[in-house]
Amino acid sequence: MTTASFAPLSNDTFLRACLRQATDHTPVWLMRQAGRYLPEYCATRAKAGSFMGLATNVDYATEVTLQPLERYPLDAAILFSDILTVPDAMGLGLSFALGEGPRFAKSVRDEAAVAELQVPDMNKLRYVFDAVTSIRKALNGRVPLIGFSGSPWTLACYMVEGKGSDDYRLVKSMLYSRPDLMHRILEVNAQAVARYLNTQIEAGAQAVMIFDSWGGVLADGAFQEFSLAYTAKVLALLKKTHDGATIPRLVFTKGGGLWLQEMGQLDCEVLGLDWTMNLGRARQMVGGAVGGPGKALQGNIDPNVLFAPPAHIQKEVIRVLNSFGKPHDDKNSTGPTHIFNLGHGISQFTPPEHVSALVEAVHQHSKALRR
Amino acid sequence: MTTASFAPLSNDTFLRACLRQATDHTPVWLMRQAGRYLPEYCATRAKAGSFMGLATNVDYATEVTLQPLERYPLDAAILFSDILTVPDAMGLGLSFALGEGPRFAKSVRDEAAVAELQVPDMNKLRYVFDAVTSIRKALNGRVPLIGFSGSPWTLACYMVEGKGSDDYRLVKSMLYSRPDLMHRILEVNAQAVARYLNTQIEAGAQAVMIFDSWGGVLADGAFQEFSLAYTAKVLALLKKTHDGATIPRLVFTKGGGLWLQEMGQLDCEVLGLDWTMNLGRARQMVGGAVGGPGKALQGNIDPNVLFAPPAHIQKEVIRVLNSFGKPHDDKNSTGPTHIFNLGHGISQFTPPEHVSALVEAVHQHSKALRR
Repeated sequence: MTTASFAPLSNDTFLRACLRQATDHTPVWLMRQAGRYLPEYCATRAKAGSFMGLATNVDYATEVTLQPLERYPLDAAILFSDILTVPDAMGLGLSFALGEGPRFAKSVRDEAAVAELQVPDMNKLRYVFDAVTSIRKALNGRVPLIGFSGSPWTLACYMVEGKGSDDYRLVKSMLYSRPDLMHRILEVNAQAVARYLNTQIEAGAQAVMIFDSWGGVLADGAFQEFSLAYTAKVLALLKKTHDGATIPRLVFTKGGGLWLQEMGQLDCEVLGLDWTMNLGRARQMVGGAVGGPGKALQGNIDPNVLFAPPAHIQKEVIRVLNSFGKPHDDKNSTGPTHIFNLGHGISQFTPPEHVSALVEAVHQHSKALRR
Repeated sequence: MTTASFAPLSNDTFLRACLRQATDHTPVWLMRQAGRYLPEYCATRAKAGSFMGLATNVDYATEVTLQPLERYPLDAAILFSDILTVPDAMGLGLSFALGEGPRFAKSVRDEAAVAELQVPDMNKLRYVFDAVTSIRKALNGRVPLIGFSGSPWTLACYMVEGKGSDDYRLVKSMLYSRPDLMHRILEVNAQAVARYLNTQIEAGAQAVMIFDSWGGVLADGAFQEFSLAYTAKVLALLKKTHDGATIPRLVFTKGGGLWLQEMGQLDCEVLGLDWTMNLGRARQMVGGAVGGPGKALQGNIDPNVLFAPPAHIQKEVIRVLNSFGKPHDDKNSTGPTHIFNLGHGISQFTPPEHVSALVEAVHQHSKALRR
């Protein structure tokens, strides 16, 4: 698949901001923007029968990926899929019971189970790559398409626990008791995630994001050894360009603000932040200066702001944009840039019309900020 | 009740460390040290019939408070109670279903419910103050007794949600939509918590701790306005001495590492930290120098370390002690000190013998560190 088969981009604001190039407004997209808060999403999911039925059907995945773009002038699309497709392809059997989180039929808790783990045949993930190509075609150059995966550590959490956890007892027991087993899981995951993201890039993803959703539950020291090091390993294996275009790489560690300085050393273009971090402080730490190196920053409004009335949403959007401050506007150089997003996935209970208020406020105020 | 009625302290290591005075070893106690991981605790709870039956019975509360001290050479005792007794006394009806967290019969979600809130009559909390006096007597000077309360914000979370939450949707909806109502709840809570802690001090508590268990879920900006400001308000109202003794005040914000610099401005003696924060970095930021002002630091090993075999526990204990570094040893001055603790409450699944390994490692290695 070569870029020639896809339409040229009519809105490249997101990609420019990823590469720390000046833009006329702050681009905005929302984590989990194709999701249950949209009635049209729920209708498609009902037709599909299950979450995995939705994710594995190319037509449905394309349909729901585009739904939020029909409603809102978002600046990027993100592949509709799940962060846990890779361990599913390893044979662990991913499912989603209605109203519950993900669950694996098999979990990886002992030496024998760890020894069995292998980088999966990418053909088992063909449905993802086909969806990427289908979505990219359907987008027809409207906005760029982001591919993604869970981080090696985040995948390991689910693989060991078998499902979500509130104390991470099993995975941390392994980490503290048998670090050798944990490292072996993470090594396999890193290789698998890199291959998975590279194949998404070949299929048409114009940027890729690594979700380290559970990095923030680790202790200082353990985070660097068991999460950050393997995110770095994935990044080192990723394609930096495809068909002549640079492919920005985004890393988001929920609860990772304390390690931002260290994350600033990652070989990636964008760092995502949750709402606990002050964007102005983050910019000072890793945003860099005009003409110098640095990271683009993505985030970080609390998704719960979307439960407030539109006037309050607007006020909070302005607060977040102002906390980053004016992005650089030097067309001849790179410099600090901001991509607006939530600090975590959008809640299923969000009123859809409140999202309009947020997107509009980002576009309006971020233009005003540049004047 | 005057100090004269209580036996003099034979182990004041914890209190000395709170006041940044030199000690021969690093004192250690564990959040939730009297809890379900101890079979003797489960036996007493079974006799009491329920958690609240246990907490409201002075003899039972005394018995379980002392249980961990019988097993381990801990350097402090903490009142057996719950962080939510104050809203219970406001009439919200606290209960604990077996295997579940706390739940209120009434929640506070609208203007009318907020208007009704009042600082409760302290007589409704008499069972707590009686337990404090009873425990202090039973301790007979062995180690100091810590009293505690939830922070105004943490109480508000439970009061609005009615129970624990994983997204804090209801309380944050109120915060973003009706900040006036949220401020009124927090104002009442701050007054109530201050009165509650002062009465614990009068009853015999030798230090008091404010648990801001949910401060870390707030966005930057919101944390300062809705959590930190009200913790500061409580602190301003607390007795600094009682019967001639200084009463150290400890503040623990789970997930608060990013705001440590601002927490360093609180009028308290000790800041508690969870496992995400590097203690050496925290010491640099707020620990102060010998002879200068600063905070004692408490924490911060991951409670999940206790699932590893004793040799691994010892290794992690040493890592945490070393991350703080050598506490000051100037007998004529105050300076940086460390109180060893978990970064969160101990898990009910902890093998009790592993706690012995932890306490022993803290005492041994912290003495070695001072040589």
